[in-house]
Amino acid sequence: MTNSKCKTQNLFITFEGIEGAGKSTVLKGITEKLKERKIDFIVTREFGGTEIAEKIREVLLNYHYAEKMCNDTEILLAFAARAQHLNNLILPALKAGKWVLCDRFTDTTYAYQGAGRIVSSERIKIIEDWVQHGFKPDLTLLLDLDVNIGLERVKKIRKLDRIEVEKSEFFERVRSGYLEQSRNDPKRYRVLDGSKPLDNIIHEAVSILDEFL
Amino acid sequence: MTNSKCKTQNLFITFEGIEGAGKSTVLKGITEKLKERKIDFIVTREFGGTEIAEKIREVLLNYHYAEKMCNDTEILLAFAARAQHLNNLILPALKAGKWVLCDRFTDTTYAYQGAGRIVSSERIKIIEDWVQHGFKPDLTLLLDLDVNIGLERVKKIRKLDRIEVEKSEFFERVRSGYLEQSRNDPKRYRVLDGSKPLDNIIHEAVSILDEFL
Repeated sequence: MTNSKCKTQNLFITFEGIEGAGKSTVLKGITEKLKERKIDFIVTREFGGTEIAEKIREVLLNYHYAEKMCNDTEILLAFAARAQHLNNLILPALKAGKWVLCDRFTDTTYAYQGAGRIVSSERIKIIEDWVQHGFKPDLTLLLDLDVNIGLERVKKIRKLDRIEVEKSEFFERVRSGYLEQSRNDPKRYRVLDGSKPLDNIIHEAVSILDEFL
Repeated sequence: MTNSKCKTQNLFITFEGIEGAGKSTVLKGITEKLKERKIDFIVTREFGGTEIAEKIREVLLNYHYAEKMCNDTEILLAFAARAQHLNNLILPALKAGKWVLCDRFTDTTYAYQGAGRIVSSERIKIIEDWVQHGFKPDLTLLLDLDVNIGLERVKKIRKLDRIEVEKSEFFERVRSGYLEQSRNDPKRYRVLDGSKPLDNIIHEAVSILDEFL
């Protein structure tokens, strides 16, 4: 499991950011452009993407537990779902020459469990390496947005899950964590301003894609 | 999270073996003896032992999936449940001075996922160290039994789960894996012959406990 598939032209693109930052909308905008260009792709998401990974998602996001989920459990569940998703969906699709667009991936774990819950990156990297053997996305689009604006957007459309009910300081740490990751890996990361009108963001995302290709 | 609690007299005892080897019966026999001696203890099991760990158990043992669960996912789920169990039940009980008797623990992962599914011990040890920081049971009682006899016993009382429906070669590897573990850690392991009458095994287990104390 290496990045050897990068030799082909199909890309593994991930979309990251706090909830409500516009990931899903930008992702949808990009798929329209890929369709126009007759590019073969799949769209998937974390946690989830396969039957078993979706079952793990339910355990992760349910918040009707009488006990607190410990950080180690949360991280291991995230990677358990990821291992399944990677081996049974993402890697086979890339091998078949398809592009893979994924709403959240490992950067989410560094942002939420790492920066948010204050677990060291070194500790998370042990599990990342164990599961991914160095495999990473080719391009990560980070939608950056003010935490309160993001959460207000989400609350208007659905109930918050176990992680989303955290206090806003938690999400401030998540946002800062994402921005730090983007500074540490500028070759892979592109940061988009989530406060701009969506059409502008999608236009910018498509330009990045063109430039990246 | 170290074995520092060993300085007190309360013990963490685990029961291992293939299904049907008599773990639960021997465990119950031991609890009778502990009650007679007015020892404060809890009985728990893997996968499970807490609300969230039991939810993870359901994902692990359900076998009505259209996709195959990959080995990495199985190992990470096992340790996700274990981390929760350890941090929210086992360690607090030991700190409170109680004995903890546990039906299966990390040795199960080495036997089933390691020897059974042919994943290297070195690979499993990375996750064990990440979760347990060197913490191990004080005493492990391995109930050893012919694989076919064990499975026949289980089939008489209930339906087999996702792991138990494996072929008998799988369980032969599991049994050999357990025996190898016991040879590698003779100080912690005691092997009991599961083909003997249960009263004899319980008697032997109690003698081991006396000798161990």
